[in-house]
Amino acid sequence: MEKGGITYPEGFLAAGMCAGIKKKKEHDLSLLLSSVPCVAAATFTTNRFKSYSLLWSRKNIKNPIRAVLVNSGNANTCNGQESRRNTDLLMGRLAGLLKAEKKELLFASTGTIGKKLPFQVISDALPELMGRLGAANHQEAARGIMTTDLAMKEFHSGTGIKGRKKEVVMGAMAKGSGMINPCMATMLAFITTDAVIGREDLQEALSGAVEDSFNMITVDNDMSTNDMVVCLANGQAGNPAIRKGSSDYSLFASCLKDVCRQLAVKIASDGEGATKLIEVRVKGAWSSGDARRIARKIAGSNLFKSAVYGCMANWGRILSSAGSVRARMDTSRTEVSICGIKVFNGNPLDYNEPELVSLMAGSRIEVCVDVKKGNFEATGWGCDLTEQYVKINKE
Amino acid sequence: MEKGGITYPEGFLAAGMCAGIKKKKEHDLSLLLSSVPCVAAATFTTNRFKSYSLLWSRKNIKNPIRAVLVNSGNANTCNGQESRRNTDLLMGRLAGLLKAEKKELLFASTGTIGKKLPFQVISDALPELMGRLGAANHQEAARGIMTTDLAMKEFHSGTGIKGRKKEVVMGAMAKGSGMINPCMATMLAFITTDAVIGREDLQEALSGAVEDSFNMITVDNDMSTNDMVVCLANGQAGNPAIRKGSSDYSLFASCLKDVCRQLAVKIASDGEGATKLIEVRVKGAWSSGDARRIARKIAGSNLFKSAVYGCMANWGRILSSAGSVRARMDTSRTEVSICGIKVFNGNPLDYNEPELVSLMAGSRIEVCVDVKKGNFEATGWGCDLTEQYVKINKE
Repeated sequence: MEKGGITYPEGFLAAGMCAGIKKKKEHDLSLLLSSVPCVAAATFTTNRFKSYSLLWSRKNIKNPIRAVLVNSGNANTCNGQESRRNTDLLMGRLAGLLKAEKKELLFASTGTIGKKLPFQVISDALPELMGRLGAANHQEAARGIMTTDLAMKEFHSGTGIKGRKKEVVMGAMAKGSGMINPCMATMLAFITTDAVIGREDLQEALSGAVEDSFNMITVDNDMSTNDMVVCLANGQAGNPAIRKGSSDYSLFASCLKDVCRQLAVKIASDGEGATKLIEVRVKGAWSSGDARRIARKIAGSNLFKSAVYGCMANWGRILSSAGSVRARMDTSRTEVSICGIKVFNGNPLDYNEPELVSLMAGSRIEVCVDVKKGNFEATGWGCDLTEQYVKINKE
Repeated sequence: MEKGGITYPEGFLAAGMCAGIKKKKEHDLSLLLSSVPCVAAATFTTNRFKSYSLLWSRKNIKNPIRAVLVNSGNANTCNGQESRRNTDLLMGRLAGLLKAEKKELLFASTGTIGKKLPFQVISDALPELMGRLGAANHQEAARGIMTTDLAMKEFHSGTGIKGRKKEVVMGAMAKGSGMINPCMATMLAFITTDAVIGREDLQEALSGAVEDSFNMITVDNDMSTNDMVVCLANGQAGNPAIRKGSSDYSLFASCLKDVCRQLAVKIASDGEGATKLIEVRVKGAWSSGDARRIARKIAGSNLFKSAVYGCMANWGRILSSAGSVRARMDTSRTEVSICGIKVFNGNPLDYNEPELVSLMAGSRIEVCVDVKKGNFEATGWGCDLTEQYVKINKE
């Protein structure tokens, strides 16, 4: 196994293992370590109930960061006030082992809300986890953060930005599946880069990238208490510092957005019970906000999601969703197409229904809605709603 | 069959029949007629895409009203600009038959969006429909407005307000099942009363009643293009006019709210695929808006709805829903109980899990959330999310 995913940039090591947090014998603990302190940026859930792990990370995010510990199988949320103290103790133990300071560590958790986190189990597993650290172990780490995900979610890419030592690159891993909701930082995602960049510039690039990627996906309209997206930059490429306003910044921000979109689409495709990815492009909107609200609403409509599952071109459900949000639209000229076939332009259009049904049997359903009010556009992603989603979540 | 439902108040006749709008041979056309012109009030969907039937009714709602025509099986929405003209022609034909004026008629439709409405079929059925009018035929009318509803939805009650001729009473019918979303007038509901009351007072009483009933239910977070709630008052009880500020008005408004709540709960219980009613009571909120947002969010959470279906006391999903809306709450003291058993008070509580699971096997699941920030409360209703919901809506 070569470098890739989260260890693709220079100077990052990763590990993953089965520590015994989940009932099933599956990977449930991951560690990401940088050889030097990183500049860090993050976005966090806006849910009022927050994970103790997330509160820990939010407190430290402006510090230089050395490592990120992530557990799956337990959200460390609403599980008793003593969990805050236990979180602190656990981070202290990790800092000791890494010869780092507690304030240089981030922590993220994902899983069931309200269950006691087995801190001792995790603490006992830390030495073994550290022993497994390696640049080749990115897939182990990506497995360790999965919950109901069926697919591992990794991505890496170059940026075209030249450094003294090497080209600046990016790597990433994420988990998703359930409790995926737009409007804020959603799910867990970790992005590494060896770029030299300042904290505020990194944060601005990340916030913009998240806005057009993770904040535009929905699986079930349910917002998590644990969502966070973290980006670490360790400067190992030796490039001239990337500063806002420069062409390198534009390049970096656009690469970061691409990485985030790749992960976001992976998360939507692998939504709980999903068989199809839904991509909704809204054009002709009065404002960016209007375009985003419409795209997210359609991608999140239970009725349209069910229709997509059944390969039904029920465009009435697209219109009723679009019309239900606060957004300007010319309802008499609004156009809708599904999988490239135009079905509505203010009036219902004749189309080859068997052809459309067969296109909808594919695994990626593209919807385009032009609301004829302006020049803004947005893209949102979701997945179909299946009996399997209900089965997963009733158990 | 005696008077009841929509014909319970004096002076109302109803009819329902199978006109041939639906593919299956089922009731799909209903008529409500008052012997004298009625004072009318209504609330309509706020969806930007609106049914031509709804636009017709909205135009006439301030006039004295004689009759309401309702069809199921077709929404008369986004089905071509000529449908507006056809709606006008159809209403002209009905007015001729009833010897009424077009402006004295309301029209409502429910069913698939975007299909041509078979106006000729409806027009041809009108004479037979009129021939079936009778005070005993309220159930026929209630059947004629059903779509995926499994149960007919009717209600009637007295008010305690004495008239010269008789006590003021109310009757009602509704349909629901899918595309049921809070935040606005939802679904179709028709309420009759023989009260003497002015139009503005009736509208105010109705708006208030809808706010705490139909606007507090959700089946799938999908807003319809056809929703309307109509209340007709024909004055046949001969009571002294009910005026805002009087004790009779309070009595009338409270009875109207009760009628609306009865119907709203029937609609939530009979949500598509539902096996259980979910009732969410929020207490201790900073404002009425906060309480309402929290209650609706919990009642509409796909994750919590799936858990209820599986009789799982997954209170983490209640907290994450509550925390995701714009509302003040004391997260460290928030209390949650399910079916009367307290499960969280800022910390997870020990409770008898088998007992709670067996209580959750019932058909009505009560959730109470106290957010410890003030004195406002609200109640919202929803239903569980089942494989059957997906099956109904993928076909």
